Amino acid sequence: MKTLKERRTIRKYQQKGISSELLNDLLESAFRASTVGNMQVYSVIVTRDAERKEKLAPAHFNQPMVQTAPVVLTFCIDLHRFSKWCEQRNAVPGYNNFEWFTTGAVDALLVAQTFCVAAEEKGLGICYLGTTTYNPQMIIEALELPELVFPITTVTVGWPAEEPAQVERLPLEAIVHEETYHDYTPEDINRLYASKESLPENKQFVLENKKETLAQVFTDVRYKKEDNEAMSENLWRVMKKQGF
Amino acid sequence: MKTLKERRTIRKYQQKGISSELLNDLLESAFRASTVGNMQVYSVIVTRDAERKEKLAPAHFNQPMVQTAPVVLTFCIDLHRFSKWCEQRNAVPGYNNFEWFTTGAVDALLVAQTFCVAAEEKGLGICYLGTTTYNPQMIIEALELPELVFPITTVTVGWPAEEPAQVERLPLEAIVHEETYHDYTPEDINRLYASKESLPENKQFVLENKKETLAQVFTDVRYKKEDNEAMSENLWRVMKKQGF
Repeated sequence: MKTLKERRTIRKYQQKGISSELLNDLLESAFRASTVGNMQVYSVIVTRDAERKEKLAPAHFNQPMVQTAPVVLTFCIDLHRFSKWCEQRNAVPGYNNFEWFTTGAVDALLVAQTFCVAAEEKGLGICYLGTTTYNPQMIIEALELPELVFPITTVTVGWPAEEPAQVERLPLEAIVHEETYHDYTPEDINRLYASKESLPENKQFVLENKKETLAQVFTDVRYKKEDNEAMSENLWRVMKKQGF
Repeated sequence: MKTLKERRTIRKYQQKGISSELLNDLLESAFRASTVGNMQVYSVIVTRDAERKEKLAPAHFNQPMVQTAPVVLTFCIDLHRFSKWCEQRNAVPGYNNFEWFTTGAVDALLVAQTFCVAAEEKGLGICYLGTTTYNPQMIIEALELPELVFPITTVTVGWPAEEPAQVERLPLEAIVHEETYHDYTPEDINRLYASKESLPENKQFVLENKKETLAQVFTDVRYKKEDNEAMSENLWRVMKKQGF
């Protein structure tokens, strides 16, 4: 619990590997996570090789962690293995659709997060790469993923070489709703985002980007409508291409 | 780590509540999970009220845990709060699309799983309800979710009133791929699924359902192609209806 509360994302790693023994032990723990119908419709691709990391890096906009972390894990939705088992057992699989893309994503993400909790408990540091769904086709090619396998998230792992300050979070009341969703009044929004907006580093972001508000840094600089829409179309197209 | 390795899903709960203090403490830990751009694009709906549980139950095919667990948590993708903040800050949000549905799902699922790990560490038992994406519209109505809020998974939580045996998992080598995806030969499939197929309870499933193979229990009884396809269409339709 202490580890969970005090955790922070680690982007700088020591030049020191992670033994296969430790990695497999952490993965074993991760695979105890809940899985729909005990079907385990996921796979994990382990990247240690420098050349392979170099191939993966552009998909993640060359974020340095991909090449500096000793281990990169790509967590994939995998209906391929299960379907193959069905076909070999005189059973007709029907998992090449959006419902099972989503179910596979749930399965894979519970495993990813359990891995991360277990890794941090052992003193390792992790960083999630949200870029995984931006350029899935590049990852599919770099890792040679067949039909019905789709990368849903990536985690870089290593021994921490930094101890960053913990970042802020919204207050509990911003996220938790009792019984039904309680919509936010303008006053609620002001109150709930006040602390985030008042942080010196966030004020600095606004200044640096020559924006009026922190929200504009998100909408005009970091996650722009036109980029989001292009990525949505691409994600949908690649999902279809992978057979879902 | 011990808790992670020895965990099992709990479907029977003592008639004993969970204090708000404990629940909020677990949720605080969960909200430390990684989140894209520190945007926290998720919400959690807490159901304790018996009448509300009765409304939720049919969406989950009346699985008894919904009504017997002291607490039911519905983890939602939430782009509504963030968009509202943007609009109130003279910023034009662009998160009503498939990319952000997926990103919100990642965010919400990392939180859900962190909650579960923390809860189990405290001796609570949990059960995920995969039914959440089967009947999302019923959940949306029961919990009064506005546009850009979508239920992605549900967890029932309570003090265990059972100690079930741990269920099997595929061997590590079935899930983990070194550097690239290694496709499975027919012999691999036979070997990797042998232990699962040989379990007395799984043999019993095949017998009870009058099937030839365990795989047929999945394809012909539990998760049928025509049901999967109908649910896919429904999921897509409701996702659009919620504004994504």
